[in-house]
Amino acid sequence: MDKLTLHEDPRSGHCYKIRLTAALLGLPLERRMYDIMRGDTRKPEFLQTVNANGRIPVLQIGKRFLPESNAACWYLAEGSKLILSDRFERADMLRWMFFEQYNHEPNVATLRFWLLFVGEGNLSKFQRDQIPAKRAGGEAALAMMNDHLAQHDWLVGGKVSLADIALYPYTHVCEAGGFRLRDYPAVCGWLKRIEKLKGYVPMD
Amino acid sequence: MDKLTLHEDPRSGHCYKIRLTAALLGLPLERRMYDIMRGDTRKPEFLQTVNANGRIPVLQIGKRFLPESNAACWYLAEGSKLILSDRFERADMLRWMFFEQYNHEPNVATLRFWLLFVGEGNLSKFQRDQIPAKRAGGEAALAMMNDHLAQHDWLVGGKVSLADIALYPYTHVCEAGGFRLRDYPAVCGWLKRIEKLKGYVPMD
Repeated sequence: MDKLTLHEDPRSGHCYKIRLTAALLGLPLERRMYDIMRGDTRKPEFLQTVNANGRIPVLQIGKRFLPESNAACWYLAEGSKLILSDRFERADMLRWMFFEQYNHEPNVATLRFWLLFVGEGNLSKFQRDQIPAKRAGGEAALAMMNDHLAQHDWLVGGKVSLADIALYPYTHVCEAGGFRLRDYPAVCGWLKRIEKLKGYVPMD
Repeated sequence: MDKLTLHEDPRSGHCYKIRLTAALLGLPLERRMYDIMRGDTRKPEFLQTVNANGRIPVLQIGKRFLPESNAACWYLAEGSKLILSDRFERADMLRWMFFEQYNHEPNVATLRFWLLFVGEGNLSKFQRDQIPAKRAGGEAALAMMNDHLAQHDWLVGGKVSLADIALYPYTHVCEAGGFRLRDYPAVCGWLKRIEKLKGYVPMD
């Protein structure tokens, strides 16, 4: 495989998601750090070379650049057990990964970013006005995971897959966004199962 | 393959995305209609049987249910040319599909839904306050596609793939959300290329 470089901000759960996937697979990954709070990823050089969308993470594979954390995890995990072999289960795994991007991250991760890194007192009125909807959306996403995990050890197919890796990072630090993990006991059990996986690395 | 049934509201671009994928692949698809404006997908029977997330589309495969439009397209397209065979290109295809869910749909599709189906006069103040940010986000997503398509006929790998199918539905009707397609000439050329594909079906 070509040399792998992760363009990242270590505070981002999306970046950690790729680092965790690589660690579980035993793949070496160089790390190049950016500070999103200082606008490092909006600079012309970054936009022209790394990602026109101005976002991290980006997985660099040799001289090619792959944005979007879940796409990067997919690239790393091809041919491994983290991508399920059954056709329906593989699509169902992608289902949870799209759910993560649409229902989970914009609520659970955004509230953590606003409250932990921006700071409640620094939020604009526009941001503050969105907090109740994001709180409700995040609680609905966590409740849906909890209901499913009350019946299953893993999100899909009875074993760990990219679906679990995609949803772990922002779920395990959701309390920084004002969510209460104790309200989701099946989620708590699943977090512990992930943390016992061989090769697991914690977030920085 | 097991019998395929699409649980859908024909006004939804996400539902059309699955119907278009099936049509391009020549796969028969039964259609079961719901009216999302009447809350059909929030009823207990739907939540218990079809999708606990209360959303359509859901692709039913025999007795199994698969939510999330992009996951359903992936299921249908496995083993076909719509999923690119090169490892990097396949991941890059997923990159555009995640971009669609995170950057494109919440802006471009939501404004169409609010302006065309809810009606501007019926929007809440909370919704109206979000319009400028969604307008800017949608324009940024369309501009990013346009910049890329000014250099490439298709989003990935020089041929049509699920990346194009995922982004076509809400892009081709974006004017209903107040976006101007003439501002994105390379996007317009790409829309025409998709509409000439063998098996193409229009949105209802």
